[in-house]
Amino acid sequence: MPTYTAPIRDMEFVLNEVLGVAASDVPGYGELEPGFTSAILEEAGKIASDVLTPLNASGDREGCRLENGVVYTPKGFKEAFAAMKEGGWNGLDLPEDYGGQNLPYIMGTAVGEIFVSANMAFNMYQGLTHGAISAILAHGTDDQKQTFLPKMVSLDWTGTMNLTEPHAGTDLGMIRTKAEPQKDGSYRITGQKIFISAGDHDLADNVIHLVLAKAPGGGEGTRGISLFIVPKFLVKEDGTLGERNGVSVGNIEEKMGIHGNATCVMNYDGATGYLLGELHKGMRNMFTMMNEARLGVGLQGYAVAEPAYQNAVTYARDRLQGRAVTGTENPSGPADPLIVHPDIRRNLMDQKSFLEGARAFTLWGASLIDRAHRSDDKDAEGMISLLTPVIKGFLTDKGFETAVAAQQVYGGHGYIEEQGMSQFTRDARITMIYEGANGVQALDLVGRKLAADGGKHVMAFFEMVKGFIKENDGDDALKKDFLDPLKAASKDLQAAGMFFMQNGMKNPNAALAGSYDFMHLFGHVCLGLMWARSAKAALAALAGGTGDKAFYETKLATGRYYMARQLPMTTTHLARIQSGAEPVMALAAEAF
Amino acid sequence: MPTYTAPIRDMEFVLNEVLGVAASDVPGYGELEPGFTSAILEEAGKIASDVLTPLNASGDREGCRLENGVVYTPKGFKEAFAAMKEGGWNGLDLPEDYGGQNLPYIMGTAVGEIFVSANMAFNMYQGLTHGAISAILAHGTDDQKQTFLPKMVSLDWTGTMNLTEPHAGTDLGMIRTKAEPQKDGSYRITGQKIFISAGDHDLADNVIHLVLAKAPGGGEGTRGISLFIVPKFLVKEDGTLGERNGVSVGNIEEKMGIHGNATCVMNYDGATGYLLGELHKGMRNMFTMMNEARLGVGLQGYAVAEPAYQNAVTYARDRLQGRAVTGTENPSGPADPLIVHPDIRRNLMDQKSFLEGARAFTLWGASLIDRAHRSDDKDAEGMISLLTPVIKGFLTDKGFETAVAAQQVYGGHGYIEEQGMSQFTRDARITMIYEGANGVQALDLVGRKLAADGGKHVMAFFEMVKGFIKENDGDDALKKDFLDPLKAASKDLQAAGMFFMQNGMKNPNAALAGSYDFMHLFGHVCLGLMWARSAKAALAALAGGTGDKAFYETKLATGRYYMARQLPMTTTHLARIQSGAEPVMALAAEAF
Repeated sequence: MPTYTAPIRDMEFVLNEVLGVAASDVPGYGELEPGFTSAILEEAGKIASDVLTPLNASGDREGCRLENGVVYTPKGFKEAFAAMKEGGWNGLDLPEDYGGQNLPYIMGTAVGEIFVSANMAFNMYQGLTHGAISAILAHGTDDQKQTFLPKMVSLDWTGTMNLTEPHAGTDLGMIRTKAEPQKDGSYRITGQKIFISAGDHDLADNVIHLVLAKAPGGGEGTRGISLFIVPKFLVKEDGTLGERNGVSVGNIEEKMGIHGNATCVMNYDGATGYLLGELHKGMRNMFTMMNEARLGVGLQGYAVAEPAYQNAVTYARDRLQGRAVTGTENPSGPADPLIVHPDIRRNLMDQKSFLEGARAFTLWGASLIDRAHRSDDKDAEGMISLLTPVIKGFLTDKGFETAVAAQQVYGGHGYIEEQGMSQFTRDARITMIYEGANGVQALDLVGRKLAADGGKHVMAFFEMVKGFIKENDGDDALKKDFLDPLKAASKDLQAAGMFFMQNGMKNPNAALAGSYDFMHLFGHVCLGLMWARSAKAALAALAGGTGDKAFYETKLATGRYYMARQLPMTTTHLARIQSGAEPVMALAAEAF
Repeated sequence: MPTYTAPIRDMEFVLNEVLGVAASDVPGYGELEPGFTSAILEEAGKIASDVLTPLNASGDREGCRLENGVVYTPKGFKEAFAAMKEGGWNGLDLPEDYGGQNLPYIMGTAVGEIFVSANMAFNMYQGLTHGAISAILAHGTDDQKQTFLPKMVSLDWTGTMNLTEPHAGTDLGMIRTKAEPQKDGSYRITGQKIFISAGDHDLADNVIHLVLAKAPGGGEGTRGISLFIVPKFLVKEDGTLGERNGVSVGNIEEKMGIHGNATCVMNYDGATGYLLGELHKGMRNMFTMMNEARLGVGLQGYAVAEPAYQNAVTYARDRLQGRAVTGTENPSGPADPLIVHPDIRRNLMDQKSFLEGARAFTLWGASLIDRAHRSDDKDAEGMISLLTPVIKGFLTDKGFETAVAAQQVYGGHGYIEEQGMSQFTRDARITMIYEGANGVQALDLVGRKLAADGGKHVMAFFEMVKGFIKENDGDDALKKDFLDPLKAASKDLQAAGMFFMQNGMKNPNAALAGSYDFMHLFGHVCLGLMWARSAKAALAALAGGTGDKAFYETKLATGRYYMARQLPMTTTHLARIQSGAEPVMALAAEAF
């Protein structure tokens, strides 16, 4: 069975040396001293390795079940959930007023990576709760906050997000769930929602559903949508639980992966709901949490591949098969370990250089969210809005690829469920789909984010890259291996943006046909930037006479690999983009 | 549930118009007249759609089970297998002497694609038998042929290949299964084999295992290996079945996919075996079937993605979600179909252009095998040996990608097992692993095939590409869209080969670090060539005033897409290759 060790040293490197959090001017970052953050990460790492990882494969095998309307999670989940509650992990980055610890979001993100890596399906019960809390925090009345938040922060109650209906996924304007206003100010909610992660379970006393529904008078499409709080059990005046609300689980979906999480069909039969935020502003309200939610899924994308990588490394070191082409390396054994073979290394380096770059990228993104939320910095808000579809789309596509690559190291043993490598691939697959399928992320990026605020944020991104290159241009150790490839990749990205500007006005399809490639091109430039910044930090540590030379030299070598072997993808993405709409749109629908 | 329609029109195009089989000088091809081959393909398509496809998802859900030593296949498999026997499909391309129809291998390949697409797990029972038959045909004594082949050709008995042991996968030199010579000339076989596809089942009266084992006196490593026939039931003098042999199923593996096929742990406890071919030449004998076996897996790679594509197209036409950015296309509906969206088309075009290119490539490969086997043409043998790792590695990697892409079109519904799209992804995953993991294919290509016969075959490949370009250089309709990109891609391939020549001698790792990229680069050039040839055939048909204009125009547009949007990958592969060994080999094993 796969094991997992939290990559704490690498997280420390990103937080302390690349992002320099404690010295940053983001409000609240001053307390993120190395000793403090490391203690938190180590504690999270312990519960991850000892409690969550052992339940990952068993949860996958057992799955969830629905019996007489009650959802049961896999064996051991209850005890593990109690441990998470006990540790107060859910409140780490939530307000003290409701029982949280008010640490920056970046810490919640780092800890979140650890929990997702250990057990993605399990962590979703908490993750969805976190999202629902954010929505109530942003849009709830004081009364709603007092009623729901303390119990949700403590995980006595969990939360869900109810958007999708059988005929309405991406196109939420078509939802049919209706909300009828009642005399007491509440609403009667009726309709069916599908694909509801953590929709019900036996881990908490109550489940607080956030439900998109149409109330009268809102007009057609998305404008008619409002957001409602629909608790599984109604909450009495004194805060204790009252009668069961009119919401029930119709079915648990059989899925390709994340079997430990109950993905439910939820039936609302005149359930009592409470308007959350303004009437008919449900879509806008839901989307205020979108950057965080999507960053969370981007994080899942690479985090689920981290243990896959770790176990592939172990297997490559232990499994004896064949001899090194350059001469036997394990003369006393019947064969050399897999890791001597160049193509095994090529595969492992692909994985390692992606994972570390993705981690830096995601934590940088989290720092932008902190800056935006804690200091009302509109530029940070604009930048993270631009980068969010890249984080979500690129990191989940590449995370899945990484899980597949790790599985490949095992050969035939990777295909056998007993080894646990198939699960990472199956679990990773969903991250490319939910919270907006990756094609929708690409559309959001090219159709909306690029031109937002007059293109200000994408220009700021290019300026930032250019600034970094210029600032370090005299550094020979950085120049050839890092700055030059970054410059070339960034030029490709600019050329792609230029192509969209010149052609997209006349024909929007000319831009949208290249949107997916643009998302990946952008992702490579972001990871290239993170690697250049990481290399700079590593060189500084080496120049300063670090006691941990091996770590920094490995970091540099891994970065060089990314720049030499991954970044060249930008030229192919650009060529595809520049081929325009014609090849993509040539066929009539019936010609496929 | 997914449906499947055999792509007969496209197969006809490849056979008749691209490869021109009936007019070809390959012995036996003269009878492959359009009317004759179409009738066969249509019959195969009927049994595929009506009998095999309906059992695909149910076989996946139910899987195989082992009860009291007996393996049971999923419901309906027995009846379907009887229908396959009844139709004589297994003997299509096998010698008449043993009950076959002696058609060329290319017809077996085309029909095989249809059966794999309909139900890959089911088709493996027959596919493995086919492989075992080839081995006995090539190396068996007359007596062995008479005893085993008629029953295997008719599918009364099936066959298996037993290579892998728990500690010996790629590195077969380490196998421990031993063969002790007996006085009567037979051997006692003792050992354990794993990952034995179709290892046992309830579909046939007997299972004929071909087993690699070590007999005394052969020396260390692969030199000591011999190949043995080990029947599940011993065969009496009169050809009827005698007592049960000492071979049993230890376990059925739980796998990520192909659940309908029983992947068995086989235990040999002093089982009676008969030497097949020369003593201590087992590896060589096994590898004589390698081109066919690996082409068969490359075929599986794209064939399993064909129904995934077909169903994604249907879904994209039917599912209403969002509006076309260029203006509403379905004003009477609540939304436009998915297929109006450029990124959905980009995705579907990726799939379609790969699948049709892969089909042409595979059938061309099959024609080379026919030429080699039927005319003893050493150049054809050399060419297919060169191309085999490309067919296996490139087509299975891309086939898996294609299945994943098709699943993506379904959004959240693609992740739900009920829809059947997950199965294509899970089934496709094995093709990248078995019959030599794709990294091993890349090693075979760069480490062995490139330099084989003094590099003669790769030079012949380049000459062929160059010849085609030169021969058609005056054709303006081909030049810009097809010949120019093919020329550029082929140049990249040559540059990569040159890099290996210049650097691989000093440091083999400089070549092997780029082997995987080389395999993909080669694959793209092959598909580019197939598309250029297809375009030429389509233009000829259009010029000749065909009645089926839409087919040929679609063919051209699909080819243009491949050349414009897929072929540019060659530049990235070349850049990776030219970065050499250093980035790949930089880390110490403990630094990962």
